[in-house]
Amino acid sequence: MLSQKKYLYLFSEGNKDMREILGGKGANLAEMTRAGMPVPQGFTISTEACTQYYKDGRQINEEIMADIYEYIGKLEEIAGKKFGDVNNPLLVSVRSGARASMPGMMDTILNLGLNDESVEGLAKLTSNPRFAYDSYRRFVQMFSDVVMEMSKSDFEKIIDEMKQAKGVKEDIDLDADDMKALVVKFKALYKEKMGKDFPSDPKEQLIEAVKAVFRSWDNPRANVYRRMNEIPYDWGTAVNVQCMAFGNSGNRSGTGVAFTRNPATGEKALFGEYLINAQGEDVVAGIRTPSPISKLHEEMPEVYDQFVEIAQRLENHYKDMQDMEFTIENGKLFMLQTRNGKRTAAAALKIAVDLVDEGMIDEKEAVLRVEPKQLDSLLHPQFDPAALKAAQVIGKGLAASPGAACGQVVFTAEDAKEYVESGKMPKVVLVRLETSPEDIEGMQVAQGILTVRGGMTSHAAVVARGMGTCCVSGCGDIVVDYDAKCFTLAGKTYHEGDWISIDGSTGNIYGEAIPTADASISGDFERFMEWADVARTLKVFTNADNPHDAQQGVNFGAEGIGLCRTEHMFFEADRIKAVREMIVAENVEGRKKALAKILPYQQGDFEAMYKVMGDRPMTIRYLDPPLHEFLPTKPAEIEELAADLGITVDHLNTVIASLHEFNPMMGHRGCRLAVAYPEIAEMQTTAVINAAINVHKETGLNIVPHIMIPLVGEVKELKFVKDVVVATADKLIAEAGVDMKYEVGTMIEIPRAALTADEIATEAEFFSFGTNDLTQMTFGFSRDDAGKFLNYYYDNKVYESDPFAHLDQKGVGKLVEMAAKLGRATRPELGLGICGEHGGDPTSVEFCHRVGLDYVSCSPFRVPIARLAAAQAAIKNPRK
Amino acid sequence: MLSQKKYLYLFSEGNKDMREILGGKGANLAEMTRAGMPVPQGFTISTEACTQYYKDGRQINEEIMADIYEYIGKLEEIAGKKFGDVNNPLLVSVRSGARASMPGMMDTILNLGLNDESVEGLAKLTSNPRFAYDSYRRFVQMFSDVVMEMSKSDFEKIIDEMKQAKGVKEDIDLDADDMKALVVKFKALYKEKMGKDFPSDPKEQLIEAVKAVFRSWDNPRANVYRRMNEIPYDWGTAVNVQCMAFGNSGNRSGTGVAFTRNPATGEKALFGEYLINAQGEDVVAGIRTPSPISKLHEEMPEVYDQFVEIAQRLENHYKDMQDMEFTIENGKLFMLQTRNGKRTAAAALKIAVDLVDEGMIDEKEAVLRVEPKQLDSLLHPQFDPAALKAAQVIGKGLAASPGAACGQVVFTAEDAKEYVESGKMPKVVLVRLETSPEDIEGMQVAQGILTVRGGMTSHAAVVARGMGTCCVSGCGDIVVDYDAKCFTLAGKTYHEGDWISIDGSTGNIYGEAIPTADASISGDFERFMEWADVARTLKVFTNADNPHDAQQGVNFGAEGIGLCRTEHMFFEADRIKAVREMIVAENVEGRKKALAKILPYQQGDFEAMYKVMGDRPMTIRYLDPPLHEFLPTKPAEIEELAADLGITVDHLNTVIASLHEFNPMMGHRGCRLAVAYPEIAEMQTTAVINAAINVHKETGLNIVPHIMIPLVGEVKELKFVKDVVVATADKLIAEAGVDMKYEVGTMIEIPRAALTADEIATEAEFFSFGTNDLTQMTFGFSRDDAGKFLNYYYDNKVYESDPFAHLDQKGVGKLVEMAAKLGRATRPELGLGICGEHGGDPTSVEFCHRVGLDYVSCSPFRVPIARLAAAQAAIKNPRK
Repeated sequence: MLSQKKYLYLFSEGNKDMREILGGKGANLAEMTRAGMPVPQGFTISTEACTQYYKDGRQINEEIMADIYEYIGKLEEIAGKKFGDVNNPLLVSVRSGARASMPGMMDTILNLGLNDESVEGLAKLTSNPRFAYDSYRRFVQMFSDVVMEMSKSDFEKIIDEMKQAKGVKEDIDLDADDMKALVVKFKALYKEKMGKDFPSDPKEQLIEAVKAVFRSWDNPRANVYRRMNEIPYDWGTAVNVQCMAFGNSGNRSGTGVAFTRNPATGEKALFGEYLINAQGEDVVAGIRTPSPISKLHEEMPEVYDQFVEIAQRLENHYKDMQDMEFTIENGKLFMLQTRNGKRTAAAALKIAVDLVDEGMIDEKEAVLRVEPKQLDSLLHPQFDPAALKAAQVIGKGLAASPGAACGQVVFTAEDAKEYVESGKMPKVVLVRLETSPEDIEGMQVAQGILTVRGGMTSHAAVVARGMGTCCVSGCGDIVVDYDAKCFTLAGKTYHEGDWISIDGSTGNIYGEAIPTADASISGDFERFMEWADVARTLKVFTNADNPHDAQQGVNFGAEGIGLCRTEHMFFEADRIKAVREMIVAENVEGRKKALAKILPYQQGDFEAMYKVMGDRPMTIRYLDPPLHEFLPTKPAEIEELAADLGITVDHLNTVIASLHEFNPMMGHRGCRLAVAYPEIAEMQTTAVINAAINVHKETGLNIVPHIMIPLVGEVKELKFVKDVVVATADKLIAEAGVDMKYEVGTMIEIPRAALTADEIATEAEFFSFGTNDLTQMTFGFSRDDAGKFLNYYYDNKVYESDPFAHLDQKGVGKLVEMAAKLGRATRPELGLGICGEHGGDPTSVEFCHRVGLDYVSCSPFRVPIARLAAAQAAIKNPRK
Repeated sequence: MLSQKKYLYLFSEGNKDMREILGGKGANLAEMTRAGMPVPQGFTISTEACTQYYKDGRQINEEIMADIYEYIGKLEEIAGKKFGDVNNPLLVSVRSGARASMPGMMDTILNLGLNDESVEGLAKLTSNPRFAYDSYRRFVQMFSDVVMEMSKSDFEKIIDEMKQAKGVKEDIDLDADDMKALVVKFKALYKEKMGKDFPSDPKEQLIEAVKAVFRSWDNPRANVYRRMNEIPYDWGTAVNVQCMAFGNSGNRSGTGVAFTRNPATGEKALFGEYLINAQGEDVVAGIRTPSPISKLHEEMPEVYDQFVEIAQRLENHYKDMQDMEFTIENGKLFMLQTRNGKRTAAAALKIAVDLVDEGMIDEKEAVLRVEPKQLDSLLHPQFDPAALKAAQVIGKGLAASPGAACGQVVFTAEDAKEYVESGKMPKVVLVRLETSPEDIEGMQVAQGILTVRGGMTSHAAVVARGMGTCCVSGCGDIVVDYDAKCFTLAGKTYHEGDWISIDGSTGNIYGEAIPTADASISGDFERFMEWADVARTLKVFTNADNPHDAQQGVNFGAEGIGLCRTEHMFFEADRIKAVREMIVAENVEGRKKALAKILPYQQGDFEAMYKVMGDRPMTIRYLDPPLHEFLPTKPAEIEELAADLGITVDHLNTVIASLHEFNPMMGHRGCRLAVAYPEIAEMQTTAVINAAINVHKETGLNIVPHIMIPLVGEVKELKFVKDVVVATADKLIAEAGVDMKYEVGTMIEIPRAALTADEIATEAEFFSFGTNDLTQMTFGFSRDDAGKFLNYYYDNKVYESDPFAHLDQKGVGKLVEMAAKLGRATRPELGLGICGEHGGDPTSVEFCHRVGLDYVSCSPFRVPIARLAAAQAAIKNPRK
């Protein structure tokens, strides 16, 4: 009985556009079959069967079971062989195949259908008993390992013992009887471990194999991969059941893999390798050394020519570099798989550009061919691949800022600075519980930063990304002992001066030095990015708090600054004293006196940044963190500061206690500071406007300052601060006798602001979505604390990705969209942008494009990624 | 030139339904005029003129100015007198009159229009120079004080000196020449202080007076009153300009105030007092002792009879107790004001019930006649009014839990318990920085609780409201020294044992003992509340965590429990050890072992509560607070606990450190605990279901447990926990062989839950809006920290009321409404309620009614308030 729904497809029933149902492998096997290429026949059990399996509580229901038997019948008819037949047995491979390629899942079982009877049939049919028993023992081995999860090494041990007993070195030197003996031993081992006989019924073998593929969709490695690559859990995997072609049937047989172009460099030349008289995984298993594909030209010239022709046809057909698997059975070529090949960033760029030059694709198509995230590896140092392969991972944190770093361990920012400058340690990795703004200088000289606490948007992560420095954050397994200057990880202690390496793109930590290679940007990059810039409609700005970052962003193509955080300027050594003086001041006069000392610094900073930015816009956000962040916490520092400020320690402690907050994230910060102390907004406005006037007078640039009031939740709150800004600014502009426009806008980072955006827009001239805080408030969890429980959420598939890395479109995105609509309804010309970390995340950028924002803003090193993501979004979602 | 808009109205142009434009006083003067009562003629400057004044930057614009002059002309014509005329001068009173009665605003200026010329005219016209000059000096005095804000006492000093010099005691003993001399002295003082002459132009006098009324709308006292009474700032006030009737023109003249019923008791009898030969404020100023209104019957029987007749007409007309002002000029009665009189809660109840019995109003109308908040004073002890009047306020905190308390100061919960139980101090007030769950027993014995930190929803406030105990929270001015057992406030130090009094309905703190009177509920109350129950459609539940509170709620009319917080049960001395054991357990087995110890306690609690509640529903919320709240923080306690648990102090410290959170409000709490440790939800489900089964078996009650999963932000999260609940519950029910239904729902307290409520409702069988946390997340401020900056917000009118006390309908309310709609779209039978503090707040209750919730739930002592508020909401907003 066939079920209502079609769950199975013969290869001849499908095509390449059916990836969602057939998976990538199944769709491409169908496509090759349709194109008349030599593909062993078979059928695909659809991804919908897999999701049904999970819905049914991890069972294949009766209908689907019946369907599978039905299709085995069809395949038997096509092949003219019978499952389990003593004379002419049908043997199949069973392989997983998800919509997107998914390492970590169960891959392949070959030679399924063999048992004590059919193996004899195969031997007779091929007159090659050794081949038949080799296939049989491979099957038993693969089935036990892959389906039943028995230990691989137990089987390898049996083979090794056999080879030792025979005094031979290679598997290939074992004869038919040896293979037969191996089968017996393997099956005995199976019975011992599993408590039952090895299944001899080919149908039972098949069903078990299919279930194993389905199960593997939910194994831990697959889950981790899915989360990293944003592949939804509910996609499921397909299963391909295909007639065997035997690469292990003699010296006119073999198996191999090849790419139509070089996947490392992109060079246009067939690239691959093969093994004679081998099957499946032998090529990658490294038991024998394969030959380069060019050698096939000598060994089997007709087969080689046929393969070259097919490869070219496939590349022309898919219009992309192909990654192919093939098998040769007694001189006859069979294609087992083709897919768009994975490639390095450099290769991706070269191939995309070459395909345009070859007239295969147009520029827009080329823009879609490079993963935005891949660009990271072009912009940051990378580990030497060979050295990396040999290195041991000792721990894992969050991949907070990409790139590779190798250096000697130091534990304080001061040490980092001193050791690097003195040459005592030319390359250091700064290891901290967490970083704070005072650590900036040490972070600047470090190769990389490793922290025990803090997430993707912790201070260390944000600052490191801004600098383009590698950072691994939140490795909670590390136990640091600052006093002893050492840390412990994975049972080993690392002292100051020990070499470690960290990978900010994976979060991996290595307890040794691994050589790195510098970033390198080729000419292809510039040409490619120009195509991207032509395609996109979303502007890309950068987040920058100082002239250096601003310049870095401009160099990477930023069209403006979307977020300049003024508080970072407050932390520098010569300014923090005045800031602290302001905080302990007891009245408005005292605060104004201290603010007057900060003003020249702040104004100077803005002048320098305006000069870097030229006529590009710059949005300056007013003071945001709670004031207690500027005060020391250690008794010694408190004593020193009290003496410095000329007040008693008791008084200072009282101030510190009065500023204590239970939930600083939701405390007295953002525009709440300006509501309480309008004189701060007054000083900042003076700095911004005077800087703009001075630079205008000096350079003639027509600067239009964009002033952003943070953490607004109510229009009256914005109006209150805006009134202070406008009064101050208008007075200065009038006094200077210049004709200067400026805009006052707000960050939308409080849910209430989004909900009342129609009101907020009556005062705000622009919105910038601060999606870091908006995510925190909308989810109700603090980014600093969520690390402790989010792993339980990933494990239980409640959340499949980190909402701080990828914008949550259902919840936070709904607020963003609502605010954009409400805001534009009030003020059609309202400027809309995003300045949270999501501004550099490709899927989030696509969302921003779709909901009609004007720009995204991200840290300098993410600007190229955002440009490319914006281009891809525009191509995929053309604006009407 | 008259402006486009009508800003001014003669009394003859208005009526009582024009309160919004004319203010209460103006509308009622117009109404009395229309009814042909003796009202001196005049006109009203509308509330819209006031809001225009603020829009124009606190200026009366030219158009409105012209309108005022125009209306002076009209009044001159009606009165047949002229402003400033030497022979027959027009004299007016100027009085404020907002839509709602607003103490704190500028009240009255009398005799405006007098100057050195017109006073002579008045003297001649009345042949009474003493009266003319008395009126003049009163005017100069009032204008200087009220309009120009000069010190009242300077003028009183001059009068006192004059009386001393003349050797007389009463003002009335001063003659015409004395009054003349006073005018000269007053005007000299005015010139000295103001630097300019006293204005002699009556039009200038009038405009200044009108501006003063407008200004007074924004004075600090008015702002405080508005915030307390939820009167919007943008309503504005009207100004009434009325011809003078002179109560000070001789012994056949006088002035008085009277109520148609007793405002303290509600007794049906004219109640009031008057003064012969007096003007305006003399009655309330207390310079002379007024006579009771009944005395007027003897002194001027015709006037008295006319007044009684008018009073009765007014009460019949307005169908409510009236509060009237009148003046008698040479034996002629003039009505100056009538309004629905303010009354005590007891009087309000009696009057409402009497009016129904008298056939004046129906029950629904009666229900609208009592302010829900007023009921508080019937349910809690109150200060003796006379003693309170004499007491000195030494500080102010938040009015966190209503009622009055008087007791000796203690600083720890242990001391409170010990002193009260031993009789050392029979009545104590517990003074703490903040309270925590361990303080419960001390809080139970205290008369009142006073805290330095924490808002309206802090632990102290929530628990006190639950107990019905008076609480003032968040008085940040207090400096506590626990070691010395004393606190300092307003410059004085109070030691353990000192008497203080606190008022939880106003937040006032008194440094002395003030006698209190117990709460008393009359028979009227029951009858009245029955009418309310008939009228309302919203159900009223109570929040209760123990059988005592549950019983209290039921006694007050609760129809179920909307929120039973299970963690409060965890804190009791005999259980906390097992809880702590669970927290330090290193694996699921260890946790299960500890949870097994908690289970019998928890189950017993639920059994007891089910028995109290009978067949009323009870919603049980699963563990909510972060685990660190259960661990000690002090070194000594940590050592003790470590010993107790048989682990090292280091180990315990590591656990405590690992649980530290930067923002506990947004940390590992709510259902996040159950996702990480499903065994907690398992244990709680076992306790709930077994308790229900046992009580069912014992009593036959058909209990349907309502299980509420807190802090859900995503449907998969709810599903994960619900799966644990369902698996556990179904097994227990099957094992018990009973037929028991149960429901699993969630709190909507995270913005994302509201935004995705359509998805959440696929799993949730009911929603309960946790508007405390929802308010925090939507506004992005923590209730524990917001106290520090919210005062700046009130001062600057950014927020006009505390969003934790009154639901923010624009922001938080939008989420509630959205969630209700989305949820019901998915599941039409979805149960909807609210269990935040707002459930007992009348305006919030009305909102809940309007958006279609099924019930509100509040602390037991607020249940009657919620019942009445729900009734009023239903009457005002009938459901279609």
